Amino acid sequence: MTLGYPNRKRQLQKLIQRLGLSNQAPIPWDLLDLALTHPTLSAEANYEQLEFVGDSVVRLVASELLFEVYPHCPVGEFAAIRSILVSDRTLAEIADYYGMSQFLLVAGSAMRDKAGEESRLADCFEAVLATLYLGTHDLTLIRPWLDPHFRQRAAEIIRDPARHNYKAALQEWTQSHHKILPEYKVQQNRQIHNDEERFTAEVWLKGRKLGEGTGRSIKSAEQAAAQVAFLSLVDTQNLTTLQH
Amino acid sequence: MTLGYPNRKRQLQKLIQRLGLSNQAPIPWDLLDLALTHPTLSAEANYEQLEFVGDSVVRLVASELLFEVYPHCPVGEFAAIRSILVSDRTLAEIADYYGMSQFLLVAGSAMRDKAGEESRLADCFEAVLATLYLGTHDLTLIRPWLDPHFRQRAAEIIRDPARHNYKAALQEWTQSHHKILPEYKVQQNRQIHNDEERFTAEVWLKGRKLGEGTGRSIKSAEQAAAQVAFLSLVDTQNLTTLQH
Repeated sequence: MTLGYPNRKRQLQKLIQRLGLSNQAPIPWDLLDLALTHPTLSAEANYEQLEFVGDSVVRLVASELLFEVYPHCPVGEFAAIRSILVSDRTLAEIADYYGMSQFLLVAGSAMRDKAGEESRLADCFEAVLATLYLGTHDLTLIRPWLDPHFRQRAAEIIRDPARHNYKAALQEWTQSHHKILPEYKVQQNRQIHNDEERFTAEVWLKGRKLGEGTGRSIKSAEQAAAQVAFLSLVDTQNLTTLQH
Repeated sequence: MTLGYPNRKRQLQKLIQRLGLSNQAPIPWDLLDLALTHPTLSAEANYEQLEFVGDSVVRLVASELLFEVYPHCPVGEFAAIRSILVSDRTLAEIADYYGMSQFLLVAGSAMRDKAGEESRLADCFEAVLATLYLGTHDLTLIRPWLDPHFRQRAAEIIRDPARHNYKAALQEWTQSHHKILPEYKVQQNRQIHNDEERFTAEVWLKGRKLGEGTGRSIKSAEQAAAQVAFLSLVDTQNLTTLQH
């Protein structure tokens, strides 16, 4: 093992211990060093390739967990929950729980970019997951400590009525992908056939209408609109680009 | 094991043998039955949940393979190649190679939907991958037979100048996601500073300009435009929805 800094391996061992893993586990230490090296420090040897693999690893962890814990959940809900679990926001929160930023080698210039902190943390977190995956080629070094975080969040999304809502899910998604919140336009309908049509809400993002829904209250109309928008967003068949 | 049809297990064993696997392998046969049951046959017990997991499995196979075979490939290229490998078109081709459609239980009405055949095959292929993954919780029942397909395709994309092009990649992507081809608009430039600016090409999809590029020939300008479009499409940070 040829790590750049004399203290680096001790540092990395500390992180591995924080994850509840043994330093005797088959950790590819050189890759772990790379996983915690930001592109500002080295344009060639940094976490980018590992992040690419880690993005698939974290998606698999979330999918397998949801399939095990909620085997009868409709796939639309699965996709909605997974999209929150693998969002930059969630991953950065978990990385932060383990104080991962203190192990990340990064140039001072990037450190001053506070806005990029969340995606930086999420990126290196994914790279760390790739490293642990590549140590064993399965999820045995990952699920023991990551599952509890995902389980708790999935349970919160499903159980807590205040969180089990598409407005919150849509907001998470637009913030993590576009750094902005969706806008709602609501109108009260005069001629209605039933109470569910009292209000019509539209949800907009960047000048584009994402969905529309009706309800007996403003809040429920907004939820209905957000559900249409969110489920169409998470259906990967519909994903395409918005030019920035 | 309680499979619906008396011959079903023999059928499924035949598929497993075609994949080059042993029937003694830890195959979850009930799940394999489910993986090859279309939603038209049962609204509750079908391949949808497994397909959700399989989508992550196939992504991991592609990511890990690319990381192993092309460790120094720029991540933009990685993402471009992965997007082709995990596309409905590629997965349906591989499923077809193993004659998977003959094992799929599907209602006659859906069979007549020829346009949906590719996505149907890709979906059940992903569900089969999920099943094999869940048998061992790693990729040992998958990579031995899937790797050669992916390796060959990745090598073709990277090596063959006729295939290593962003026009082809963009076309694969728009066909698999939108069932249509992108359109190119090219103009010859009169006042140019260097030969690379002789032609300007724009690439459009559904009334939206996806990219623009210049070149010394029409073909190279189109390639440049397609590259801009494709790399922005595969950058998941830029993914969002187009309302249909």
